[in-house]
Amino acid sequence: MTTAPWRDPALPASARVDDLLSRMTLQEKTAQLYGVWVGSSTDGGGVAPLQREMTADYDWDELITHGLGQLTRPFGTAPVDPVKGALALARAQRQITAAGRFGIPAVAHEECLAGFTTWQATAYPVPLAWGATFDAPLVEEMARRIGADMRSVGVHQGLAPVLDVVRDPRWGRVEETIGEDPYLTGTIGTAYVRGLESAGVIATLKHFAGYASSAGARNLAPVRAGTREFADVTLLPFEMALREGGARSVMAAYTETDGVPASADPWLLTELLRDEWGFTGTVVADYFGIGFLRSLHRVTGTDTESAHAALRAGIDVELPTLKCYGQPLVDAIHAGEIPEELVDRAVRRVLIQKCELGLLDEDWDPEPTERIDLDSTVARGLARRLAEESVVLLDNPDGVLPLAPDTRIAVVGPRAADALAMLGCYSFPSHVLTHHPGVPMGIEIPTVLEALRTELPDAKVTFAEGCGVAEPDTTGFEEAVARASEADVCLAVLGDRAGLFGRGTSGEGCDVSDLRLPGVQGELLDALVATGVPVVLVLLTGRPYALGRWQGRLGAVVQAFFPGEEGGPAIAGVLSGRVNPSGRLPVSVPKEPGGQPWTYLQPPLGLAAEVSNLDPTPLYAFGHGRSYTDFAWESDAADAEIGTDGSYDLSVTVRNTGDRAGAEVVQLYLHDPVATVTRPDVRLVGYQRVELSPGESRRVTFHFHTDLSAFTNRANEKVVEPGVLELRVGPSSAEARHTTRLTLTGPVRTLGPDRRLICGSEVS
Amino acid sequence: MTTAPWRDPALPASARVDDLLSRMTLQEKTAQLYGVWVGSSTDGGGVAPLQREMTADYDWDELITHGLGQLTRPFGTAPVDPVKGALALARAQRQITAAGRFGIPAVAHEECLAGFTTWQATAYPVPLAWGATFDAPLVEEMARRIGADMRSVGVHQGLAPVLDVVRDPRWGRVEETIGEDPYLTGTIGTAYVRGLESAGVIATLKHFAGYASSAGARNLAPVRAGTREFADVTLLPFEMALREGGARSVMAAYTETDGVPASADPWLLTELLRDEWGFTGTVVADYFGIGFLRSLHRVTGTDTESAHAALRAGIDVELPTLKCYGQPLVDAIHAGEIPEELVDRAVRRVLIQKCELGLLDEDWDPEPTERIDLDSTVARGLARRLAEESVVLLDNPDGVLPLAPDTRIAVVGPRAADALAMLGCYSFPSHVLTHHPGVPMGIEIPTVLEALRTELPDAKVTFAEGCGVAEPDTTGFEEAVARASEADVCLAVLGDRAGLFGRGTSGEGCDVSDLRLPGVQGELLDALVATGVPVVLVLLTGRPYALGRWQGRLGAVVQAFFPGEEGGPAIAGVLSGRVNPSGRLPVSVPKEPGGQPWTYLQPPLGLAAEVSNLDPTPLYAFGHGRSYTDFAWESDAADAEIGTDGSYDLSVTVRNTGDRAGAEVVQLYLHDPVATVTRPDVRLVGYQRVELSPGESRRVTFHFHTDLSAFTNRANEKVVEPGVLELRVGPSSAEARHTTRLTLTGPVRTLGPDRRLICGSEVS
Repeated sequence: MTTAPWRDPALPASARVDDLLSRMTLQEKTAQLYGVWVGSSTDGGGVAPLQREMTADYDWDELITHGLGQLTRPFGTAPVDPVKGALALARAQRQITAAGRFGIPAVAHEECLAGFTTWQATAYPVPLAWGATFDAPLVEEMARRIGADMRSVGVHQGLAPVLDVVRDPRWGRVEETIGEDPYLTGTIGTAYVRGLESAGVIATLKHFAGYASSAGARNLAPVRAGTREFADVTLLPFEMALREGGARSVMAAYTETDGVPASADPWLLTELLRDEWGFTGTVVADYFGIGFLRSLHRVTGTDTESAHAALRAGIDVELPTLKCYGQPLVDAIHAGEIPEELVDRAVRRVLIQKCELGLLDEDWDPEPTERIDLDSTVARGLARRLAEESVVLLDNPDGVLPLAPDTRIAVVGPRAADALAMLGCYSFPSHVLTHHPGVPMGIEIPTVLEALRTELPDAKVTFAEGCGVAEPDTTGFEEAVARASEADVCLAVLGDRAGLFGRGTSGEGCDVSDLRLPGVQGELLDALVATGVPVVLVLLTGRPYALGRWQGRLGAVVQAFFPGEEGGPAIAGVLSGRVNPSGRLPVSVPKEPGGQPWTYLQPPLGLAAEVSNLDPTPLYAFGHGRSYTDFAWESDAADAEIGTDGSYDLSVTVRNTGDRAGAEVVQLYLHDPVATVTRPDVRLVGYQRVELSPGESRRVTFHFHTDLSAFTNRANEKVVEPGVLELRVGPSSAEARHTTRLTLTGPVRTLGPDRRLICGSEVS
Repeated sequence: MTTAPWRDPALPASARVDDLLSRMTLQEKTAQLYGVWVGSSTDGGGVAPLQREMTADYDWDELITHGLGQLTRPFGTAPVDPVKGALALARAQRQITAAGRFGIPAVAHEECLAGFTTWQATAYPVPLAWGATFDAPLVEEMARRIGADMRSVGVHQGLAPVLDVVRDPRWGRVEETIGEDPYLTGTIGTAYVRGLESAGVIATLKHFAGYASSAGARNLAPVRAGTREFADVTLLPFEMALREGGARSVMAAYTETDGVPASADPWLLTELLRDEWGFTGTVVADYFGIGFLRSLHRVTGTDTESAHAALRAGIDVELPTLKCYGQPLVDAIHAGEIPEELVDRAVRRVLIQKCELGLLDEDWDPEPTERIDLDSTVARGLARRLAEESVVLLDNPDGVLPLAPDTRIAVVGPRAADALAMLGCYSFPSHVLTHHPGVPMGIEIPTVLEALRTELPDAKVTFAEGCGVAEPDTTGFEEAVARASEADVCLAVLGDRAGLFGRGTSGEGCDVSDLRLPGVQGELLDALVATGVPVVLVLLTGRPYALGRWQGRLGAVVQAFFPGEEGGPAIAGVLSGRVNPSGRLPVSVPKEPGGQPWTYLQPPLGLAAEVSNLDPTPLYAFGHGRSYTDFAWESDAADAEIGTDGSYDLSVTVRNTGDRAGAEVVQLYLHDPVATVTRPDVRLVGYQRVELSPGESRRVTFHFHTDLSAFTNRANEKVVEPGVLELRVGPSSAEARHTTRLTLTGPVRTLGPDRRLICGSEVS
């Protein structure tokens, strides 16, 4: 018996898939285009389709007769022991391969926003915290570990990273983003993709594209944006993560921009993504997103029309259901309403990816082969390093921090003694465990209070909760004020509770109408400040909150963005001084709670103070963050004239002039004084984190290429224009320590999709 | 001596201007392209260039040697007696005609946002109040009166109407708009244009285009908008006022949309406005707007480049200065940097307009010929009718209103006894008189308190201010609460103080970060409600404020938008029942102060409640307004099938079933169930105000044409698509009393600029 060509690993993937396609029935083909949401039984017995309001009632055995493209969240749906889960998944895969004529296994996908979203797996800091580290190599290392852990239990695809650029900090999903700058988002996101893909797991870029720009920051609300903002802000991180990171999948966003839903946009999903950018992987739907074309967007009248619109636009896989790509699609093709070529196009992409994953190989075996430990010492070490690097010291005017070892410390606030305070909405405990009361957390998560007691064993630490996160009750203020009054310093540990759709103050669907601290936490802070005891505000949040009300009245301000399972020790380390804070803000911290949307990427009119009584200047600027040591900056970079296709090496020497080791983040901003369209006053085009011992100095060199000054002009071309550019290096977007003026000469250059996107830098 | 052809009134304007142009030097031509800001001396002695920080230091006699295109605000700059002002203007015109070789007078322009903005002239309600009347014929009558008054003193051009569509109610200039619906804005704005132009005064549509959509509602902040939103919402009222109203001038906006400043946008000011829409009048700069291309937008590096960019885009006249179109332009043309053709193109437009105004005629005489009375009985009568029709009764659940004649009334609040509470920012008293302390108001403006005492002479009326408009002082609460407690009913008269740039709570530059009532007025209202005495909230504001906090706790709510000099009596009339309220909301009144921007024009995702914990449903919907009588609605309109080029007459009979005369506003909304781009759930496409005696019924017929269902598709074409449409008639955007389903058959129709824009209606 000869092996069919599609089974032959010696043939190229396209030839194998061509052969396979020629053998498949229509129903077998469409079965590759959808997924079902399965819940693993917690005893390892198998998986079964999840029956929920939004998913239909499937019979598993019947469902898999024609094959099955995707398995949705076999681990992330209910708490399952990883080893048992892996065995259950393997069993399900064996059922699938046994049931279909071709024995093609499903792609198993999972969430992995801040670690593999499953029980007992490492909870890393959220992406906003990655942004605060300005440390792409460390993020890559984390993602490699995440990918390896996912592979160890049989998962092929991870639904991360989120590359949405924050346009309004009121949005609930800000915690899932890398911040408000497309360059930072793109470079950190690219590092994540490289790490995940290097472990053999498909990275899925989402949400493509525009989702973060919803009007009024309401989840899913229509996006107002023009083509230039879309190209230069929204799309840039995706372009970087595809070209520089090699991501193999993209998720179409729920959103609509200027009337066109992303999931029904052939320009976005095919012309731009594939024809212009050259993407060859798969495009998957956001959950239920194809059905939403009818029910929420009303650009189609039936599920069949939705299937047609999505396929035509370029969505290859419906997740996590077969509402549109199931029977409605088969019927419509039989009726001649949808050309079968559209199905073939999508199936080919799916099967080529399965081929590359080895899923078409005869010897493919679903059994787990590696030792399964989803929260290893190595992983916890990475989580700790990320957490430590991500804590931002916003202010410390009088040196209240670090705390002396024998200080009397009143720890106050609803986030001090809750392990969940460390976790974002897409962590397994916040996302899923809330539905399983009594099931233990599965991972060890020291609270700030616990970690501080460990960190400072000689300190006299008292605690009072003061109030809840979002509840209006102020009866606890009295005790909190009493504890504060007896102490040398009060730590006010405030912030968010992450949760889905109304269960949290941050997270998916948990949008806010302004940037006041949740509940009565602001009033608690007022009461604590009124004691006269120095108050150190420690924020554990998923977004920035307005702090202007307490400007000049706090002993110190420490901002952490859901820092993960090792966040408590990281914060305690910063408070004690064991860790010298080096995080930098990936989002601006505003003065006032209203007046949104605003980000630092403003052309001059967005900054002008005299034309409105609203002053948008943030309290702490994008890129800001203090240290316990001081850094001196020097640069001999001289003004220069280069061609519009030229480059320039800009060096700056940073010296640690204090007596502690510490890290400085050298940031490179571009100021374009005159352009044919308005430009942000400054925008980030490079950065380099530098660790320095006391007295040590290092030289950072940025290899700036004029491509990095490109923007979308009135003709919607990416151009480099002649004229003056200013390169500003400094410790934040609001402070330039050195400015170099480059005069670009020569013609306007129009750039293609191969233009340079990243500013290389090196440290010597 | 023969008359030159350009002086010959028998020749067509274009021939006369060709002749004139052939005789003019470059400097004489450019002189026609700029204006200077003059201040009339208050004794009628003449005018002199206003010396301000932003205007250069000109010598009048030297300035006019080459002629002068425009005179800026000879009346609106300082309080000047109208007769003396007219004489001063005439004298200035004689100086101008005597100084130049050709004796061409200047076009004198003035603000006339809510009446001629000059001392002693009628202060009509602001445009937002016109929107509330839903009474286009009355607005036309008002504008005709305004135009006649301006002509009587020698003014040729009025810088109104504002056709910006509200996209974020936090914006300071909401009071200057006609509301959040483009159809209402377009039809009411068109009526204003017709009225002004019928009096021989040039109407100037502003701000072209996008200004109201500034991000975060900050004045001048960059606009995020895509091409479809821009076309279907922002541009529509301008298209209507040009085509249906015949406006002869357009003002380029300060704003930038998606990176392109309007004042440097050839697509907007030439390709769209002139080539596609066929506009032949003049485009004028907003004040200093050409200079802002360098200083605020940084799309040019010098004033010369700004002149070039603006001229090329299509701005014909620089106002109110010659910073760019003066010497920099002349020098640049001599240096060959700017083609003289661009100047010729602009001068031709200016001179043709002057020719049409009679300014090129030999017998032109600047002396005023009519009797000058800028606040005649007729004008006051119009101001009264508009004010009465614009008051919106938002709620009156228990019939607290109208008040009985002998009620004990506690009038409370900072807006009850201040005449300025009636006026918007562009009224002469608010705009200019604040700089002239001691100068009397110039017009009689009864306050709410005064008018109420006149209206209800037998009532026992007490008064306490309670607090200031924006000040934090609450010491007056005690007295206010005491007055309320002694009364049968408490009138809380709250609202805005209009003013420019930080001097007000509403007005140009007076943007707010959220929609809380200004200052401590909300707290005052809390205190009054706590007395248990029924509180009637009377709002005198320039924008909607969030009222959800008091939902179900107020006796009644009356909303007036700066109702002008007769606003006090109008409100008193509504309170007493002499006037049956008939105003309807031109803007939604939200529940919560945050969560902006939002307007009622939302596609389904903008309304969806389950996807976010923020519920955007307004407390009072666009179009809402109550009456003291009741109306029954009946319609026999049946579902129908028509072509995509068809029309449908929809009739509805409205009967006054109560015992008072009153007016109902029959509103026609379009719901498009499925379209190729997302569509607003409903949008206004017709309306008809109907006055009905008790028991009377009238039949309103709308002549709906499918053109009115057109929208901008993905290819940026205006199309009518086949499929189902719903026509919903009702008393507000939130309530349909009758729904008719039309099935449109036939091909997709692509419409040109001659498409129908207005839904005719008639009452029988």
